[in-house]
Amino acid sequence: MRFCSACGQTVEQSVPPGDNRPRYCCAGCGTIHYQNPKMVLGTVPVWGDQILLCRRAIEPRYGYWTLPAGFMENGESTSEGALRETIEEAGAQIEMGDLFSIIDVPQIEQVHLFFMARVLDSRFDPGPESLEARLFTEAEIPWDQLAFRTVTQTLRWYFEDIKAGGCRLHHSIVRYEPKPRP
Amino acid sequence: MRFCSACGQTVEQSVPPGDNRPRYCCAGCGTIHYQNPKMVLGTVPVWGDQILLCRRAIEPRYGYWTLPAGFMENGESTSEGALRETIEEAGAQIEMGDLFSIIDVPQIEQVHLFFMARVLDSRFDPGPESLEARLFTEAEIPWDQLAFRTVTQTLRWYFEDIKAGGCRLHHSIVRYEPKPRP
Repeated sequence: MRFCSACGQTVEQSVPPGDNRPRYCCAGCGTIHYQNPKMVLGTVPVWGDQILLCRRAIEPRYGYWTLPAGFMENGESTSEGALRETIEEAGAQIEMGDLFSIIDVPQIEQVHLFFMARVLDSRFDPGPESLEARLFTEAEIPWDQLAFRTVTQTLRWYFEDIKAGGCRLHHSIVRYEPKPRP
Repeated sequence: MRFCSACGQTVEQSVPPGDNRPRYCCAGCGTIHYQNPKMVLGTVPVWGDQILLCRRAIEPRYGYWTLPAGFMENGESTSEGALRETIEEAGAQIEMGDLFSIIDVPQIEQVHLFFMARVLDSRFDPGPESLEARLFTEAEIPWDQLAFRTVTQTLRWYFEDIKAGGCRLHHSIVRYEPKPRP
């Protein structure tokens, strides 16, 4: 950030009165520009003993597999955002279930939330952000080709919970280290 | 938003290629300025059969009571942020517990997360954002003087769960309607 989005003057980093950390502050109009973490919302779409994954058509992690997920938009609830992303990325018809995982990723200033979802029709229509969308049994999951650690962790929890008799909500922190590019 | 924070030119709202909603776009440098919901992090600080509340010294809801809470900062986990806010607003020594409530507030583009916390010392040192910090039994909670609906909902869940034998994680949506000012 170099310029004030309210008045166009250059901004400087300084600690505002009563605050305790540097912010982008505009000396012209007085606006303080706070920067905060973003939420990523997704689903664990279940069809019998299979899970729906999408292969990414965009960076980061082009060509890797992911649960359908993306940034939360203003004006929507977390569940609405997760449903929207699943429609946009997989073209899947789903019924939303309960919140299943919350994973903090402080290094990249994100919190990822995944909801359980029931796939209603096994025909998919992947959007422009996905190369393909298909169902995987646990044995078929491409563990070494998953795009993000939060996806790997969420899938592990899902298959553990299923074996243990039922899904419960999980919360953890991923200290994110990007994998090498393909 | 009127000016590009990267280059200082004026921005226009338009739907970028491949997107499906208007964003602030800079015709000069091509930057797209996404705007996303923010997370508010707080605690339910428990001391025996009492809960620690803070009386707000700032707007909105000056003079009303709240659980200690505030905006998540970049670089911290949700639990770290909730601990930080509890120290800043109440000057309380606490031991953090599990995530307890997640409440979407889509109208104001926020998601509120509250963690259980154990108060370790009943002496508090409220910061500049609080007029006072004190402990309340359930019978003493000033229900009609609470600052935010997410606080009211979280406290209701807490006292219900305690009566039912234990705390579990709750998730809901508040369709926010501000109360009239005092």
